[in-house]
Amino acid sequence: MKLATVAIEGRTTWGLVEGDNFLDVGAVLASRYADLRAAIAGNLAGVADAKSKATATPLAGLTWLPVVPNPDKIICVGLNYETHRKETGRAEVEHPTIFSRYSNSQTGHLKPIIRPRVSTDLDFEGELAVIIGKGGRYISRSEAMGHVAGYSCYNDGSIRDFQRHTHQFTPGKNFPDTGAFGPWMMTPDELGGLGELKLTTRLNGQIVQEAQIKHMIFDIPRQIEYCSTFTRLEPGDVIVSGTPGGVGARRTPPLWMKPGDIVEVEVEKLAILRNPVVDEAP
Amino acid sequence: MKLATVAIEGRTTWGLVEGDNFLDVGAVLASRYADLRAAIAGNLAGVADAKSKATATPLAGLTWLPVVPNPDKIICVGLNYETHRKETGRAEVEHPTIFSRYSNSQTGHLKPIIRPRVSTDLDFEGELAVIIGKGGRYISRSEAMGHVAGYSCYNDGSIRDFQRHTHQFTPGKNFPDTGAFGPWMMTPDELGGLGELKLTTRLNGQIVQEAQIKHMIFDIPRQIEYCSTFTRLEPGDVIVSGTPGGVGARRTPPLWMKPGDIVEVEVEKLAILRNPVVDEAP
Repeated sequence: MKLATVAIEGRTTWGLVEGDNFLDVGAVLASRYADLRAAIAGNLAGVADAKSKATATPLAGLTWLPVVPNPDKIICVGLNYETHRKETGRAEVEHPTIFSRYSNSQTGHLKPIIRPRVSTDLDFEGELAVIIGKGGRYISRSEAMGHVAGYSCYNDGSIRDFQRHTHQFTPGKNFPDTGAFGPWMMTPDELGGLGELKLTTRLNGQIVQEAQIKHMIFDIPRQIEYCSTFTRLEPGDVIVSGTPGGVGARRTPPLWMKPGDIVEVEVEKLAILRNPVVDEAP
Repeated sequence: MKLATVAIEGRTTWGLVEGDNFLDVGAVLASRYADLRAAIAGNLAGVADAKSKATATPLAGLTWLPVVPNPDKIICVGLNYETHRKETGRAEVEHPTIFSRYSNSQTGHLKPIIRPRVSTDLDFEGELAVIIGKGGRYISRSEAMGHVAGYSCYNDGSIRDFQRHTHQFTPGKNFPDTGAFGPWMMTPDELGGLGELKLTTRLNGQIVQEAQIKHMIFDIPRQIEYCSTFTRLEPGDVIVSGTPGGVGARRTPPLWMKPGDIVEVEVEKLAILRNPVVDEAP
């Protein structure tokens, strides 16, 4: 299944993506689930059955919103591909590097990533997003994959000068409309094995990052194990699992995103997340 | 006004603290405000008028919850007193050091701070919490104090080994039931000038941290200005404004909190936040 959160003529809903259509399952199940996060918490029960009653809308008529607009937690994993760790000059570590995003920093597929008026150091970070299904604490590596509801594409857009104001990344990772998340999540049964899948970031059609998911330093079971040690994971939580080498900040000269650019994050078989870049309104 | 979120016989509500009584304003205004966060968003309109209709409960009969149990954002300021910056050996910086807590890491006054089964390095950090009233972006220093709804005490309980797993603090700052927040928030008109007020942390009755609010490196207007540059502040957001020197991790030998301990964070004139320490259930 492919599931998305969208707006249709100003009304927010969620549902299934099938071919060129969006099926408004959210409207059918409105009394049962307030939003996609609630449906995930309900283990997506009833979703397949609701399909036949759902109104179809062509994808071209939608406004895409972040797949989960209101997660309880967005947990970001830094420096999780060897190519990126090396380009940043960071030492090897035994544990994942964790920082967080607030929900209001997110945006959806085809919506603009906004370059704020206070910086021009706007960088891309293509990533695989993991959406938690069943919550839990102290989840073991061997049980971790049973806690995944699905996968999506994420662009962990970063304001590098704010990220480096101090040793803590938070300010550079939380500007409004910098974290693009979508277009949809795909359930694990449909996506299948992750390891061989390619993660690619393109800026104006040129490949700027490329890696296979298996090249992560800490794989997804290890991320879920570690994160669920220090916090209780909840349905709809998002783990943004790290970006490979090639970020703009580590190029000479730096390659910043600027108004008029189009940035794409593709996870093979899963989706292409595409966003234009615009300047913040004065 | 002093406002708190509490549970009375299992029912969660919010209201005013006056003398030895809690006045259940939340029940009177239930159709208007879902919780204290909503009342803050409504600029506390109607709260004073509702007082005469509110049922009184002796404070001794309450379960105290985090003042705002569900903030959109908890923004923590690190290394914000010179005595603490020096004891950690960190360089001076031009900007506040920012990390974040998830809401589910919080606990209330008199509730236990929980030492997790995976660590014994549980440390105290007494702090002043600032609760945002009117939201906004790009708030200037001169206008910042107009965006404050109130102040409270916070114990930014930290699991130091997890905090130091990498250079990012997030894991050590998010264990469940480590961030104590309460007992109430006091509105600025009642608290008055902050600078001379003393912030004190006591462990088992012994003073372990002590500073005046005016000894912050980045004062509250500067914190609000900086945070509202990288994120939009919302009503009910919490800025945890930093801890002075004296933390347990920087003592020789380290002074960790352990089961049976009582830790208190006092902000003069405002309140005393008191928590017992217990081990996590096996």
